[in-house]
Amino acid sequence: MASIFSRIVSGEIPAAKLYEDDLTLAFLDINPASRGHVLVICKEELPALLDLPPELVAAVAQTVQRVARAINAALQPDGFNVIQNNGAAAGQTVFHYHVHIIPRWNGDQALIPWKAGQISASEQAELVALVQAQLG
Amino acid sequence: MASIFSRIVSGEIPAAKLYEDDLTLAFLDINPASRGHVLVICKEELPALLDLPPELVAAVAQTVQRVARAINAALQPDGFNVIQNNGAAAGQTVFHYHVHIIPRWNGDQALIPWKAGQISASEQAELVALVQAQLG
Repeated sequence: MASIFSRIVSGEIPAAKLYEDDLTLAFLDINPASRGHVLVICKEELPALLDLPPELVAAVAQTVQRVARAINAALQPDGFNVIQNNGAAAGQTVFHYHVHIIPRWNGDQALIPWKAGQISASEQAELVALVQAQLG
Repeated sequence: MASIFSRIVSGEIPAAKLYEDDLTLAFLDINPASRGHVLVICKEELPALLDLPPELVAAVAQTVQRVARAINAALQPDGFNVIQNNGAAAGQTVFHYHVHIIPRWNGDQALIPWKAGQISASEQAELVALVQAQLG
């Protein structure tokens, strides 16, 4: 069963498309967090960031920049967020890689900021050792 | 006056560094939203996404993937968010391009989901026309 985004790529279901190239597609989110909320996807149906070849990560990121530049010029927001969720625990609901561009206006409260935590020097050292062991 | 991140790049102020190459640097966020919250920056001091050459957008995105893969293997979260804020209205506080990797665990509430809005067909058509006029 193809993802809803694959069905948009194939034209089986409609979307308000903004930009398309060989590897990527940008269209309006149908449940926008703000005016001009856009999704950029890779056309290939791959679930999340760790599933993409690095070249495709780059292609999507460059389409995000291209479309964000146009949104910025067209809608003149005060800022914008670029968000990509991996896994249901992170709020991912469609398991086909996609990046959100969410225009923001001062005071809009479209997204709630996260709480700034604390980390000790020893906790930092422990994490660096754990992660660097995986970076090889 | 160099940004706090440029001063980390130069070694003037310390950071828990995880990965570094010619163009990019990854280190622990000192105010983590969750365990393993990492920042990936471009070493060059450029404020936000629209200021980067496309090659540098790609380089940062690929470092994000590389470091996220290591975090995933090391900490085994249930998911992770990749977030990049542009402008104070979007929550950006350091005006030197940086991407957050925020590991997530089921039910952690580290980030509050945004509210799903609605958009009519005519509003979609209006936005497509506005943005496509800027895509040229």
